Amino acid sequence: MAFWKKFFKNINMFNQDKNSINIKKEYLAEDLILIKHLENQGNHNDIYISTGKNINLYELEQLCDSVGWVRRPLKKVKLAIDHSFVTICVFYKNNKSKKLIGFARATSDTVFNATIWDVVIHPNFQGKGLGKALMDQIVIQLRYSDISTITLFADPHVVSFYRRIGFITDPDGIKGMFWYPR
Amino acid sequence: MAFWKKFFKNINMFNQDKNSINIKKEYLAEDLILIKHLENQGNHNDIYISTGKNINLYELEQLCDSVGWVRRPLKKVKLAIDHSFVTICVFYKNNKSKKLIGFARATSDTVFNATIWDVVIHPNFQGKGLGKALMDQIVIQLRYSDISTITLFADPHVVSFYRRIGFITDPDGIKGMFWYPR
Repeated sequence: MAFWKKFFKNINMFNQDKNSINIKKEYLAEDLILIKHLENQGNHNDIYISTGKNINLYELEQLCDSVGWVRRPLKKVKLAIDHSFVTICVFYKNNKSKKLIGFARATSDTVFNATIWDVVIHPNFQGKGLGKALMDQIVIQLRYSDISTITLFADPHVVSFYRRIGFITDPDGIKGMFWYPR
Repeated sequence: MAFWKKFFKNINMFNQDKNSINIKKEYLAEDLILIKHLENQGNHNDIYISTGKNINLYELEQLCDSVGWVRRPLKKVKLAIDHSFVTICVFYKNNKSKKLIGFARATSDTVFNATIWDVVIHPNFQGKGLGKALMDQIVIQLRYSDISTITLFADPHVVSFYRRIGFITDPDGIKGMFWYPR
């Protein structure tokens, strides 16, 4: 567990503000970023983000279950992740356990356009800025590849969230459109 | 030019209706579909669709120029095509020449979702049903892979075109959203 060795080596770099939330970002390894330290009634949780694709599919299924998404065959989920250009996972770790609490992925042509899918934060961890951190990170990854058109399709109840973090609906009258099997 | 041999062998299968347009589809080779025979003042043009990725980038640039799109580096265009899940080209061929007159591509995770980009028909060939044929073909290709969510972002002047061929705007209030570099 080379990562955790590095993780604990770096942990003292994080200062705690009065809300016990620290948003300083430190790169711990190529694809791992420690983003927050949450303290709640004496429990310490460290939140980090990973851009790796080595994702436990059962953990991902549990996470999607937690927000009530329709289940999808794990084999297909694996293929979708393999063929996504960027995947981002959010984990939390305390003394006892490590758990997947957030996820998002983007398909892309790798140079011009990207579309973000399957954005999810576990209900117990919503309202702590983790959705924003997740989205910031996916945008950073896509911008790193110089992708200029970053798109998504937002359910009505999350449109205002995406607006707050800089996404625009129907710019210049451009409309998102869907074709469904009939 | 094995394709053309096969192409001319099959050409007599096409009947001409009174508008000299025939929409009968014949598979000529694995990735080539003869879709229309157009006759205009004695000139015969055969229109076919290709799903191959062996695209002449200069021809594609000329096609995009014809509709006034901003030019993009060919190296990047090549990468985008290589990383698209489906690309569709529309060609016309008469006695004298063969020309790229339509194009579209889709990014996808290969199993769940796809987004269609860069849909273009040369202005001289618009209004002949080729846009619909192009879109039908891209949907067929995506449905062949059992992709259920087929999406696109439509400029205001083409929203009604996409509606006519079965695309829906903002279903259940889902909004297409964009993030642009600031």
